[in-house]
Amino acid sequence: MSIRIFVTGGTFDKEYNELTGSLAFEDTHLPEMLRLGRCRVDVSVRTLMMIDSLEMTDADRALIVEQCRQAPESRILITHGTDTMVETAAALAAALAPESRQTIVLTGAMIPYAFGSSDGLFNLGSALSLVQVLPAGVYIAMNGRYFASDRVRKNKDTGVFEAT
Amino acid sequence: MSIRIFVTGGTFDKEYNELTGSLAFEDTHLPEMLRLGRCRVDVSVRTLMMIDSLEMTDADRALIVEQCRQAPESRILITHGTDTMVETAAALAAALAPESRQTIVLTGAMIPYAFGSSDGLFNLGSALSLVQVLPAGVYIAMNGRYFASDRVRKNKDTGVFEAT
Amino acid sequence: MSIRIFVTGGTFDKEYNELTGSLAFEDTHLPEMLRLGRCRVDVSVRTLMMIDSLEMTDADRALIVEQCRQAPESRILITHGTDTMVETAAALAAALAPESRQTIVLTGAMIPYAFGSSDGLFNLGSALSLVQVLPAGVYIAMNGRYFASDRVRKNKDTGVFEAT
Amino acid sequence: MSIRIFVTGGTFDKEYNELTGSLAFEDTHLPEMLRLGRCRVDVSVRTLMMIDSLEMTDADRALIVEQCRQAPESRILITHGTDTMVETAAALAAALAPESRQTIVLTGAMIPYAFGSSDGLFNLGSALSLVQVLPAGVYIAMNGRYFASDRVRKNKDTGVFEAT
Repeated sequence: MSIRIFVTGGTFDKEYNELTGSLAFEDTHLPEMLRLGRCRVDVSVRTLMMIDSLEMTDADRALIVEQCRQAPESRILITHGTDTMVETAAALAAALAPESRQTIVLTGAMIPYAFGSSDGLFNLGSALSLVQVLPAGVYIAMNGRYFASDRVRKNKDTGVFEAT
Repeated sequence: MSIRIFVTGGTFDKEYNELTGSLAFEDTHLPEMLRLGRCRVDVSVRTLMMIDSLEMTDADRALIVEQCRQAPESRILITHGTDTMVETAAALAAALAPESRQTIVLTGAMIPYAFGSSDGLFNLGSALSLVQVLPAGVYIAMNGRYFASDRVRKNKDTGVFEAT
Repeated sequence: MSIRIFVTGGTFDKEYNELTGSLAFEDTHLPEMLRLGRCRVDVSVRTLMMIDSLEMTDADRALIVEQCRQAPESRILITHGTDTMVETAAALAAALAPESRQTIVLTGAMIPYAFGSSDGLFNLGSALSLVQVLPAGVYIAMNGRYFASDRVRKNKDTGVFEAT
Repeated sequence: MSIRIFVTGGTFDKEYNELTGSLAFEDTHLPEMLRLGRCRVDVSVRTLMMIDSLEMTDADRALIVEQCRQAPESRILITHGTDTMVETAAALAAALAPESRQTIVLTGAMIPYAFGSSDGLFNLGSALSLVQVLPAGVYIAMNGRYFASDRVRKNKDTGVFEAT
């Protein structure tokens, strides 16, 4: 089974820029994380963008949708900032044809992977497993749980994803 | 959904004892790992033993089987040393009644969680997700993959779990 | 020998706030770092402020100077943001009486301690050793080196402290 | 100022071998640690041996002494297992000519650097600073403190170095 991973940025991949003292994006940490997890799943990683999901535009979402549509793989994992992950999941669910055979799982992190105490590796293990097993559809995998794209919200006060 | 987690030790929970310079077991890191993963799944953790799986006896395996049998939960995750994980999975599969409705997933780590570069958090995220989704049966979750208990071996040369 | 440690904030103590996605200060990590270093030097830690050194005012510097003057200890270590560490060192050197018997060492970090790959622990070991050994005066300890307060600048392009 | 660093192994450089589940030596982590510390001191690192200091023989110690004698640098840092660090320091002090102008500082770690929660980086920062500042002689730098070679012992019960 071959799995496509699309990287869009988000907290997952934020870095601390030591010259400016601010957070920024450089390269994705996905390949390093897969190595650390000793992952032996057949994956191909492609970076679509490296942005904070609060800055994601409709055009960005259209690009993500289009890339999923064109992907030959039926199993797709998307790393995404948590702030608008629900919106992108909804856009994907709306755009995919009802007869689509694709399983798409979005995940992210509350703490950057580079910061040592991240939930990113846990979430990646979770999402990568779910995308292999769940039936066709669009899902969010966070906090060890998974949610259908139209049944989830991020609680802004707690940072936790909840069923709606 | 409530998930039972049984801890049996293994590399997952090995620590470096700085007075003796050797590896040893103290308390399990499972609760800390679940916290780090911001896990919001309803789990109850119970430590059955804290041993290297090379030292696991038939009596130890009988205890694990019995605890699974008696558990009210239908979803059970077992942390286990990788060296004899396949044997314990086989013992569980042999002992469970065919009509059992339990999904049991064993996982472990190649590097102790306490050592910073562990695969443990990735594997925990993976196993905890799979145990929620897979049908009744006994499985091993390692390397981002999952295997039915009778279709897997650990390659001793590479440390990787493979389908048989 | 008793050593006074004054905490003023800086990158050393920055944290990632996962609800806002921004960097912020909470409590100092100094006690945890001393524990990690298995430090057995007799120290007393006091937090004077928790700020980014770019926001340090003349009043803040006056407070630091006054606290050093009043400290009964002759050996003082100050953790400080790197951006204006040289200015504070100069203020201290200007304010201390020529006959002062105090050795004051300022140090900081380029990467927050909480972020895993920090230079903070290295710098703390360095500064804590130098403050025990150097003669009276005001110094900066960074990059494994030490500098008299009037012979140093931070190179903004490289983030490295250099002799002038 | 140029500093020679001799690596002899010890807990500092122990690794977890994931295939055998035991502790072993591979390459030294010194260069990586110096990079992490953003060290800008002029150092040259040479590995003399990679052994547990409990296994260090008289011949090994003679080699270390000889290498120090022949080193053109007057400032030498030695990384060493903590169990027999005091013995090697004594051998060095006994062998060096009274008129020697060399400052030699031995340091080590209680927890392997690779294990995430190590005291190694703190100790390295400490030793590297002390070797630049202390007068000629042989010293041990541990626990944020330094000791003349003939005034120190390791407390086997606590793992802490103490003045005698």
